[in-house]
Amino acid sequence: MRITVCLTDNRPDAWIEGLRAALPGAEVENWKPGAQQADHAVVWAPPQSFIDEQPALRGIFNIGAGVDALLKLRLPPQAKVVRLDDAGMSVQMAEYVCHALIRHFREFDIYEADASEGRWSFRKPREREDFAVGVMGLGVLGERVARAVAQFEFPVNGWSRSPKAVEGLRCFAGEAEFDAFLGATRVLVNLLPLTEATRGVLNRRTLSRLNGGEPGGYLINVARGAHLVEPDLIPLLDSGQLAGATLDVFEVEPLPAEHPFWRHPRITVTPHGSARTVREASIAQIAAKIRAVERGERVAGVVDPLRGY
Amino acid sequence: MRITVCLTDNRPDAWIEGLRAALPGAEVENWKPGAQQADHAVVWAPPQSFIDEQPALRGIFNIGAGVDALLKLRLPPQAKVVRLDDAGMSVQMAEYVCHALIRHFREFDIYEADASEGRWSFRKPREREDFAVGVMGLGVLGERVARAVAQFEFPVNGWSRSPKAVEGLRCFAGEAEFDAFLGATRVLVNLLPLTEATRGVLNRRTLSRLNGGEPGGYLINVARGAHLVEPDLIPLLDSGQLAGATLDVFEVEPLPAEHPFWRHPRITVTPHGSARTVREASIAQIAAKIRAVERGERVAGVVDPLRGY
Repeated sequence: MRITVCLTDNRPDAWIEGLRAALPGAEVENWKPGAQQADHAVVWAPPQSFIDEQPALRGIFNIGAGVDALLKLRLPPQAKVVRLDDAGMSVQMAEYVCHALIRHFREFDIYEADASEGRWSFRKPREREDFAVGVMGLGVLGERVARAVAQFEFPVNGWSRSPKAVEGLRCFAGEAEFDAFLGATRVLVNLLPLTEATRGVLNRRTLSRLNGGEPGGYLINVARGAHLVEPDLIPLLDSGQLAGATLDVFEVEPLPAEHPFWRHPRITVTPHGSARTVREASIAQIAAKIRAVERGERVAGVVDPLRGY
Repeated sequence: MRITVCLTDNRPDAWIEGLRAALPGAEVENWKPGAQQADHAVVWAPPQSFIDEQPALRGIFNIGAGVDALLKLRLPPQAKVVRLDDAGMSVQMAEYVCHALIRHFREFDIYEADASEGRWSFRKPREREDFAVGVMGLGVLGERVARAVAQFEFPVNGWSRSPKAVEGLRCFAGEAEFDAFLGATRVLVNLLPLTEATRGVLNRRTLSRLNGGEPGGYLINVARGAHLVEPDLIPLLDSGQLAGATLDVFEVEPLPAEHPFWRHPRITVTPHGSARTVREASIAQIAAKIRAVERGERVAGVVDPLRGY
């Protein structure tokens, strides 16, 4: 069995070494143009030329949870596209979201600004019951985030394309229940896959419905920048309709130096690090899946290209 | 039954109204010098003169978890001193500590400083396994905090005066195991009661033992300012032995304007708000305890004045 590795933005050596150790007998090589046909590929944002030169791939294993960049390519029809599930990412996502949520709820950003001026301040605590959190996307990451948030006793709503029941969550599904979900939610956490159906889902109309249409909603976007219609955000913050936003992902990354998000007082920008791929856990997961595919077994995380995730 | 309310720093009206509603038939009044003898008192930091004028009290109910200020007074020997347990505080404490912990672990403070200068930065993620959290004090608050931290998959140690077994925690107890607890801990969370035995427990010697004596430890103090020998902290941070501290409590509160903690880059100061008393939940708890004491039943949270908590 031959495995080729094509990682942009990532040094491949440790991945190759890890895959070799996890799959004894397999030939694991870094891809170069003109390389031999491989059976499986381990990829991050590969160029179209890579795919075109490897028409015989049976499996394409993405080293992240989001496959939107990969699905833009013309892929060999027989190749299973497999995304990473969890592999150490969900705990990071739960951390990131809880940190951002608690910071908004408890106004720690404002307390820190006061402290930087030596001010011992008091702000009236807000009521937890008024801070319903809504998680969009109830996959492995979304469920973990929702559970972590629920532990802090916030009311938690969940929205997914197809109906789901998750303990402790008020679950909404589909287009029909989307506005009800938004209205019942004060802090919106986006964990959707980026597809044609979800592009631009965070916009003036939808974000204005948060918190029953009352001012004071928050946005935490940890999925993809293109979920947000970026020009819609700042007017909503400036009018007070939204009280704050924590953004880890952007239409263009790195976020350009002149972008107004950098310096807006109610926007926290982080450099797409909410959940990084954990190499060891990912190698173990991908190796196990490759072995399963070779044995003809079903594996988790196979992408439906029509659905887009 | 007569109940007197003596709250410094707190407007008593809503407490009195709430206690009247919860204890129909009881006479609930705000304390004034020369008032009638009461059966029970609901207090926050009362003056000695209050206690001296109320020698017949059977119960003194503190509207906080820490009774160190109350135990400094000469109290009538027959009076049970009862502290609040939980009553909505433990979830706030868990929030505060998780926010501070995640902020230190993920270096979000540094990312935010970079963002404020428009810098899209990358820092090598640290290993969760290297970030053992140690919770000192395993009462209602400490246990809740430890559970919340464990959910984020940090190794969690616990230390208490007398041996305790808490699921998911590596538990240490007593003086004999204190240094082992410190050595096995990178992020120290203090939730001890303030007693003569714990005053100054956070000092140069103990804080230097964190993280196996290696540089890079963190302190999160949410108990009492007097647990920390304040002059010891800054040299430990400046030498790098400690990497950061989040402090909610101080020897003198409000923290004086000239205090160096305000402006130290590795210290986060918050104005003693990690867990505020939730009035409704506290009134319900105190009313239930007063009824139980009147029926001659045992209640939770009775303070042992010798032990100090």
